[in-house]
Amino acid sequence: MKTIALIVMGCGGVGLQLIHHIVSCRSLHANKGVRLRVVGVCDSKSLLVASDVYTMELDDAMLLEVSRVKSNGSSLATLSSSGKHQVYSSPESTRKIIDVASLLGKSKGLTIVDCSASSEAIGVLKQVVDLGCCIVLANKRPLSSSLEDFDKIFGDPRRIRHESTVGAGLPVIASLNRILSSGDPVNRIIGSLSGTLGYVMSEVENGKLFSEVVRTAKNLGYTEPDPRDDLSGMDVARKALILARLLGFRINLDSIKIESFYPEDMGPSVMPVNDFLANGLPLLDKDIEDKIKRASSNGNALRYVCMIEDSRCEVGIRELPKESALGRLKGSDNVLEVYSRCYNQQPLVLQGAGAGNDTTAAGVLADILDMQDLFP
Amino acid sequence: MKTIALIVMGCGGVGLQLIHHIVSCRSLHANKGVRLRVVGVCDSKSLLVASDVYTMELDDAMLLEVSRVKSNGSSLATLSSSGKHQVYSSPESTRKIIDVASLLGKSKGLTIVDCSASSEAIGVLKQVVDLGCCIVLANKRPLSSSLEDFDKIFGDPRRIRHESTVGAGLPVIASLNRILSSGDPVNRIIGSLSGTLGYVMSEVENGKLFSEVVRTAKNLGYTEPDPRDDLSGMDVARKALILARLLGFRINLDSIKIESFYPEDMGPSVMPVNDFLANGLPLLDKDIEDKIKRASSNGNALRYVCMIEDSRCEVGIRELPKESALGRLKGSDNVLEVYSRCYNQQPLVLQGAGAGNDTTAAGVLADILDMQDLFP
Repeated sequence: MKTIALIVMGCGGVGLQLIHHIVSCRSLHANKGVRLRVVGVCDSKSLLVASDVYTMELDDAMLLEVSRVKSNGSSLATLSSSGKHQVYSSPESTRKIIDVASLLGKSKGLTIVDCSASSEAIGVLKQVVDLGCCIVLANKRPLSSSLEDFDKIFGDPRRIRHESTVGAGLPVIASLNRILSSGDPVNRIIGSLSGTLGYVMSEVENGKLFSEVVRTAKNLGYTEPDPRDDLSGMDVARKALILARLLGFRINLDSIKIESFYPEDMGPSVMPVNDFLANGLPLLDKDIEDKIKRASSNGNALRYVCMIEDSRCEVGIRELPKESALGRLKGSDNVLEVYSRCYNQQPLVLQGAGAGNDTTAAGVLADILDMQDLFP
Repeated sequence: MKTIALIVMGCGGVGLQLIHHIVSCRSLHANKGVRLRVVGVCDSKSLLVASDVYTMELDDAMLLEVSRVKSNGSSLATLSSSGKHQVYSSPESTRKIIDVASLLGKSKGLTIVDCSASSEAIGVLKQVVDLGCCIVLANKRPLSSSLEDFDKIFGDPRRIRHESTVGAGLPVIASLNRILSSGDPVNRIIGSLSGTLGYVMSEVENGKLFSEVVRTAKNLGYTEPDPRDDLSGMDVARKALILARLLGFRINLDSIKIESFYPEDMGPSVMPVNDFLANGLPLLDKDIEDKIKRASSNGNALRYVCMIEDSRCEVGIRELPKESALGRLKGSDNVLEVYSRCYNQQPLVLQGAGAGNDTTAAGVLADILDMQDLFP
């Protein structure tokens, strides 16, 4: 039986869903000869860690308690230490993670799983790679930060997986890595990688007003609390950067041409969110409507896409053939079209749900298991 | 630097393309820390093997010579032994492969790559798994044979890859394995997995006569020399069986309901191929035309698909919604729709070229590299 020791960073929706998947898949994985041993879990402030990481782990009862506490909106700091586990608060929590990485990384192996959405883990990740740890990321930040950070964290490509950084659990990264490792040069990627913006564009295409669609999407919880976090294109740009770097582009976020749905004078630093929703948004309707009409008269659909081609990496609104996979896209599905030597006339198309905690956590779990051969 | 030793079985289009990819990707793989060492190559009759498999390999000049000989339609038996390599003919060739597997399998590691299309390798594959070898298959036969053979060859799922058995290099198997390993239960697979039949159905949909489309496809080299090898559905059934077994179905080929395009009295044992093309085929036009019309009046498209659902595994002509990925399929692309807990409203869709030596060999090479962590 292989044993993979894990520390899960981030106890938001994805982290908790991952813990749930780990607990509920124990017998499935045992049948395949793998045991997942969660030795630590941390949120933004605290770390809960097994007292002896060599011999102990956070058992299922403890993991369910973590789930209960975090689902109630409490901090891990509210849990008290016992003989079986300890609670550390920042900055001791970070030092303790490095300690555990030193103990387990090179001997028994340890995978650090970053399910957070912050840049705070980058420092830890850069240290643990030198300690022999494996890394699994749902968090886009560590790979969309500086090239120096990227190179450090990505130092050994066999010891890192990050499927859920792009398209949630959709097998985008795994498929691209297969193509690249076979020596098939990828010469074009074009994709709709935001379920939110995919939904918005397909509703607007159906004749609804842009401002109304965005408000509905916000009310349904499809957007971030401030929809401008989606409409800025920054989230899509981070995904585009990760894909471009996989293809070997030596670029940073600021090299990407990013088209925002709103002008600078409607930005978060200028206009409060309620003002934007009530007064800003409707001013954008006419422009989008005109673009949709123009696209339609050209036999095209309007999509918000990332495009990586030659030395360009761009994110913005584009007209695409109605008959292409991207043009036919409906609802919140993600789509990626990949062109290469093998896929030249027709692209390789990957399509499906590109968001949701369940799917995202499933992608993380598949990544963890994909590295099992590195564990004793 | 990791070193992966290989024996390539089968010197048809896929095997030769694989050898070409290996030679032309040497620097790419060296940059990623991997060296592929081809110690043996065999065709249906002979084995060409390095004289000392511990220290020697078939160098690039020798591999290019293999390519030249086989492209000319000659046998490896026409090559003569030298100090650097030996040529063995059947049945000594088989014994020699087992010898090499015994020497390398458990010490340095050895991957046996089956790029043939015959059942002859099954015996060898069943022996080498016990000798610690890894297996990569483009050949469908070993996994669509008896359950006993399947269980033996698939004994350790970490030591076998077979992406190119279904959909050529399309990441079908890799994606399904990711979904299954994450504990996401796949409850429905439906796919068009024959480029030939996909082409035929989409041309017939455009108003052409079935018999004419099949004849054109044969003349373009899209079909097997006897098009009934495609039209019987047997090739698709083998792919369906491999997918079903991945999902845990304990079935054999004869449990699959297979719909053939032609009746038994037009079969190869009754009617010579030229007779079938001239006189048999046109008798089938009316039925296909009626089915297309019926589908169209229902708002559907007619496709030849594999369907795996509940405990059923079927292969045949089905009506599918025109708006689905399968219904929109044009030309010879393969499409697979996967439904699971994570992909329930909308399926995960994988689409792209599902045939061709280049793509198939690229899938094999990606499989080989995917197992590199098992090598010292």
